[in-house]
Amino acid sequence: MASLSPLINELVEALTILPGVGPKSAQRLALHLLEKDQSGAHRLVGMLSKALDEVGHCKKCRNLTEKEYCPICDDAKRTDEQLCVVETPAEVLAIEQTGFKGRYFVLFGRLSPIDGIGPEKLGLDQLKQQVVENGVKEVILATNPTVEGQATSQYIQQMLQGSNVLITRIAHGVPLGGELEYVDGGTLAHALAGRKAFD
Amino acid sequence: MASLSPLINELVEALTILPGVGPKSAQRLALHLLEKDQSGAHRLVGMLSKALDEVGHCKKCRNLTEKEYCPICDDAKRTDEQLCVVETPAEVLAIEQTGFKGRYFVLFGRLSPIDGIGPEKLGLDQLKQQVVENGVKEVILATNPTVEGQATSQYIQQMLQGSNVLITRIAHGVPLGGELEYVDGGTLAHALAGRKAFD
Ligand SMILES: [Zn+2]
Ligand SMILES: [Zn+2]
Repeated sequence: MASLSPLINELVEALTILPGVGPKSAQRLALHLLEKDQSGAHRLVGMLSKALDEVGHCKKCRNLTEKEYCPICDDAKRTDEQLCVVETPAEVLAIEQTGFKGRYFVLFGRLSPIDGIGPEKLGLDQLKQQVVENGVKEVILATNPTVEGQATSQYIQQMLQGSNVLITRIAHGVPLGGELEYVDGGTLAHALAGRKAFD
Repeated sequence: MASLSPLINELVEALTILPGVGPKSAQRLALHLLEKDQSGAHRLVGMLSKALDEVGHCKKCRNLTEKEYCPICDDAKRTDEQLCVVETPAEVLAIEQTGFKGRYFVLFGRLSPIDGIGPEKLGLDQLKQQVVENGVKEVILATNPTVEGQATSQYIQQMLQGSNVLITRIAHGVPLGGELEYVDGGTLAHALAGRKAFD
């Protein structure tokens, strides 16, 4: 917009990196931050820059955290016997809503040779080590029902075949091609309950 | 969420200051910024903090700008003869879409004695001075069709009664109680064209 000052235009553009925020709503966000809630905007700058500096990966499950271990790995009340493998941190939150009380392992992606994403990038060595060392009895594969997600689960299943653990995957109650993160809690709980042995 | 690290929770909370962003979408925004687009997040921190530092008000129309004068006041091709008075910067953008080629004056609010917002806070002295000194022939009042917005227009009309300018207000084609910013361009263009003398 020629009627906005250059610096405000740059801020608008920077805001369009947010998912679901187009040029029009980025404009509204920018004006809100500069005009209506400057103190909130300052707090946002501070928190985001602090989080970018300090947040890294949990040493155990790889989920995002600013500490050595995330709150879930740190929680002594949860069971080590079940380990749920997901692709992203958002999916941990989705599965938490079903009442699951085991542990997680976050891949941060899925196998995709074309994009150069192999087993090492997904931390699969670390996953294997966890399963062997931590008394895991069941590994629940909850990758997304996409071609690459399923291929990733298959790879993990083969990798763990020697270890003495039950390998399951969540039931296909989630729509094919969909993302776990957007599935309602009820459907996801059902899919989790209906999991079956990986074959 | 107990399953998110404290620092990530604080970031989620800081993000809920954004209009239209509830706890659920703030969570998604936070994970996106920390996981999927860290470079975009760094750019956003930089631009927002720069804008908060440098953006102030145009010396002439009071709109937001990091310069002395905003791009609209700086544009020699626009006419000084028409001055459109609006409540917020977002409404300048809305009226720009109708093809209006005059100047603006941004009140940043409306008269509201209960909230301690009087004429000085809206810069009405400055508005009067502009009208007298800059050869304005028509002042178009485009405050929102709310009780306070209309009272503000009335106050300005009385304030300018001595000056030799035509005072108009945009036609009531905009829904009562609505905010200009959300009205589609066509309706707004119609309302602008149908403006009538302030009586
Ligand atoms: Zn962890
Ligand atoms: Zn200006």
